[in-house]
Amino acid sequence: MGDQNRRPFDVLNEAKDGRVLVTLKGYGDEEKQVSGELQAFDKHLNIWLEDARVTGEDGQTDYGQLFVRGDNVLFVSPE
Amino acid sequence: MGDQNRRPFDVLNEAKDGRVLVTLKGYGDEEKQVSGELQAFDKHLNIWLEDARVTGEDGQTDYGQLFVRGDNVLFVSPE
Amino acid sequence: MGDQNRRPFDVLNEAKDGRVLVTLKGYGDEEKQVSGELQAFDKHLNIWLEDARVTGEDGQTDYGQLFVRGDNVLFVSPE
Amino acid sequence: MGDQNRRPFDVLNEAKDGRVLVTLKGYGDEEKQVSGELQAFDKHLNIWLEDARVTGEDGQTDYGQLFVRGDNVLFVSPE
Amino acid sequence: MGDQNRRPFDVLNEAKDGRVLVTLKGYGDEEKQVSGELQAFDKHLNIWLEDARVTGEDGQTDYGQLFVRGDNVLFVSPE
Amino acid sequence: MGDQNRRPFDVLNEAKDGRVLVTLKGYGDEEKQVSGELQAFDKHLNIWLEDARVTGEDGQTDYGQLFVRGDNVLFVSPE
Amino acid sequence: MGDQNRRPFDVLNEAKDGRVLVTLKGYGDEEKQVSGELQAFDKHLNIWLEDARVTGEDGQTDYGQLFVRGDNVLFVSPE
Repeated sequence: MGDQNRRPFDVLNEAKDGRVLVTLKGYGDEEKQVSGELQAFDKHLNIWLEDARVTGEDGQTDYGQLFVRGDNVLFVSPE
Repeated sequence: MGDQNRRPFDVLNEAKDGRVLVTLKGYGDEEKQVSGELQAFDKHLNIWLEDARVTGEDGQTDYGQLFVRGDNVLFVSPE
Repeated sequence: MGDQNRRPFDVLNEAKDGRVLVTLKGYGDEEKQVSGELQAFDKHLNIWLEDARVTGEDGQTDYGQLFVRGDNVLFVSPE
Repeated sequence: MGDQNRRPFDVLNEAKDGRVLVTLKGYGDEEKQVSGELQAFDKHLNIWLEDARVTGEDGQTDYGQLFVRGDNVLFVSPE
Repeated sequence: MGDQNRRPFDVLNEAKDGRVLVTLKGYGDEEKQVSGELQAFDKHLNIWLEDARVTGEDGQTDYGQLFVRGDNVLFVSPE
Repeated sequence: MGDQNRRPFDVLNEAKDGRVLVTLKGYGDEEKQVSGELQAFDKHLNIWLEDARVTGEDGQTDYGQLFVRGDNVLFVSPE
Repeated sequence: MGDQNRRPFDVLNEAKDGRVLVTLKGYGDEEKQVSGELQAFDKHLNIWLEDARVTGEDGQTDYGQLFVRGDNVLFVSPE
């Protein structure tokens, strides 16, 4: 049996300073993904990424720093 | 009569470390399902899965670890 | 005149251990219904069903246990 | 001048044990209405109806008892 | 300079017992408007109207009393 | 460097009694704008406008007084 | 390892008085971006921009001052 006191945000704590892939909600349009170095996050899943790349149907856009508002997030996965 | 003090989250507690199937809201696009090993969840139904597979109309994607933001969840079922 | 202190959740309390039919919000796609044995619910209308059957346009799916996130619910009716 | 201390929920209190018509939000699909005997409601406008009839584009469905989750409600009108 | 302590709900207080026009959110379908005598409202903008008329693409419907759930409201304007 | 203690609502305080342009969320339909004299606002961005004009695809509508529910607002800009 | 006490909003604090690019949610219609000088923001991500330019499918619009309601925001990136 794993550690029963684990909390979902533990997986993000362990991923800090590494790259993560953030999949965003579709809101009826195409789905976007953002890859970047996880600098910080909070309980609302607001996320600060460095060296970020946003990928969507209309191509890719790079941002040095990106603040993602938490309510837009579908998944986060450590790369 | 069952135990009257049961709470909905009890069913997820009993499923920890086992595989669960998470069905996500459609938001007007196709519905996604995520299967994985339930590591942790919280009162907002934020979920940490290991060895996760996301299945949607455009195929399947595997993730070693996946944090699912709770407000996207429709159902969760122990496999 | 009925008992003036009734509360909406009383009707679900009386339905515990019996089968209920849960109609879900459409979110612009087709409407789903879930039938199952009501094990537990909470103030957000998160619901734990046993021996559950989900019915939608694309057919039926059975689940031994199902946790339904409350914000997806339109109606609940004791069968 | 009417009684300045009236509150919106007073109109529902006065309608208890009588029939009401509940019009639901459309969510981009067709609009549904539910008619029934108002047993109870709470501050979120969760509503317990008896002898309820749901009317939508795809016809009518009758329910002995119906719990309507408040966030789906557009209007309520005493019949 | 006007009174700096005015609050938005003051305009509704002044409109009590008079007729108001309530424009509702479209939710992707056509927009509805409700005209009626403002009896009461609360901080969530739940509104109790008397002698109410709902106008939408599919015509007009009259209600003696109407409780409008606040989260559906776009504008309110004293007539 | 500007005053580090500025808060977003300061810009609306400075605009009181002047005309502002409020751009509303589209909700999947066309976007509306409302121009008017800013009388009051609160922390939810509920707004009281005088001498207001609503502009949308289907033309313009004038209102002597208009209460705009805050959750519909996209931008506000002093004219 | 970076400073473990960083918080997402730190990246916006560092960007004050500089230009930022705010990408807004699509709500099923086209996506808008707003570029401007970041004057202030709060915990809801309400944002006050000066010398702002809104870019969408239907062209560009300039605003001297712009208050952006936080719940509309997808990303913010220092330019």
